[in-house]
Amino acid sequence: MIEAIGLDADDTLWENESFFRLTEAEFCALLADHGAAEDIITRLFDVERANLRRYGYGIKGFMLSMVETAIELTDGAVDGRTIGRILDLGREMLAHPVDLLPGVEAALDALEGRRLILITKGDLMDQERKIAASGLAERFAAVEILAEKSPEAYGRVLWAQGIAPERFLMAGNSMKSDVIPVLELGGWGVFVPHEVTWAAEHADAPDHPRLREIGRLDELPGLVERIEGGAA
Amino acid sequence: MIEAIGLDADDTLWENESFFRLTEAEFCALLADHGAAEDIITRLFDVERANLRRYGYGIKGFMLSMVETAIELTDGAVDGRTIGRILDLGREMLAHPVDLLPGVEAALDALEGRRLILITKGDLMDQERKIAASGLAERFAAVEILAEKSPEAYGRVLWAQGIAPERFLMAGNSMKSDVIPVLELGGWGVFVPHEVTWAAEHADAPDHPRLREIGRLDELPGLVERIEGGAA
Repeated sequence: MIEAIGLDADDTLWENESFFRLTEAEFCALLADHGAAEDIITRLFDVERANLRRYGYGIKGFMLSMVETAIELTDGAVDGRTIGRILDLGREMLAHPVDLLPGVEAALDALEGRRLILITKGDLMDQERKIAASGLAERFAAVEILAEKSPEAYGRVLWAQGIAPERFLMAGNSMKSDVIPVLELGGWGVFVPHEVTWAAEHADAPDHPRLREIGRLDELPGLVERIEGGAA
Repeated sequence: MIEAIGLDADDTLWENESFFRLTEAEFCALLADHGAAEDIITRLFDVERANLRRYGYGIKGFMLSMVETAIELTDGAVDGRTIGRILDLGREMLAHPVDLLPGVEAALDALEGRRLILITKGDLMDQERKIAASGLAERFAAVEILAEKSPEAYGRVLWAQGIAPERFLMAGNSMKSDVIPVLELGGWGVFVPHEVTWAAEHADAPDHPRLREIGRLDELPGLVERIEGGAA
């Protein structure tokens, strides 16, 4: 029996990474005199990776990494107006409406009555804004915003909620953050790939008896029933 | 009977606001050609206030507000090197060791066996770093990092933990965030003023039968006993 279902939010319930890609394209246009777009994106990714331990996930850290990359790329010559445009790009992201992904509402309708937990990571403020704006908050028995989706962090959530790992299933678009740590804990992991996923979230799919993959979230309710019936 | 005690973290368990004040002084020195220190600080505070809804609390938002203030003060003429120095100031704050306030360890020793909950707000990543670095994590039955310390947010914590508000006591240095919302919920609020408190956290003390004030956290264990005995 699956006692509780965890759902990731960004790029599982709603669009997220595609806004980062659009912002990166505008960032490259701002700095077009200082490099080709692909080189600027590589540089930005290196800065983001180096800052992850310090800033964690989310738009504010991304804004600070864009500013740092602009300074590096121009050897400190970038002017305040360009930095101001970078801040504007980040603020536009923070104000962006929430676009639900196809199949999400149907999936949540079909899962009604089950114990659903929204488990996401990133900026507290921005995640809470998106959860409120999504209109989905009341579908979830609990909302957990984590700094990092490690096995330990999932373990603390399950412990606090009194859920045995083998009765927990987590679905999300990140093999690294949504699937593998839950498999390691002894739970079920359902990979729901999204066409745009941040390079830092990539991980190879392990060969694991409790790993499943679906194309869209509305395939989840049927999959859960088949798992419970021993047929998946 | 007090069933659970909530403790704020920044400027209740450890120093925090004083690092912001030191960083502000360095920020003013960087921009000394563009204004007097008191004017720059006023401008920065206005920018922070305007950004609070967007960025929430914490060092990353403060860094972004310093960058924005520098751009405004220089009419966009600030150069990348100065912005880079501002980023360095923020990164130094993010790496700063945790300095426990006087009386904290004695207070926690005397409260051992009671159900203690650390309730703080701000950046998830930075708060988790400080909790780990403080060495105090295992003293707490639960840690809650909130985006905003509203009565609703406290109510969710108490509901999730199964604590009746009238059996909950919260102690902290912010009348606005630690004391008043808990009094409003029906709990006890203990004000522990710190010599440095951010202007946005100021609020007048209400005239309330469940409000108490102490000078240092090590006065809390005795106060709790007197409240339980009906003598405080």
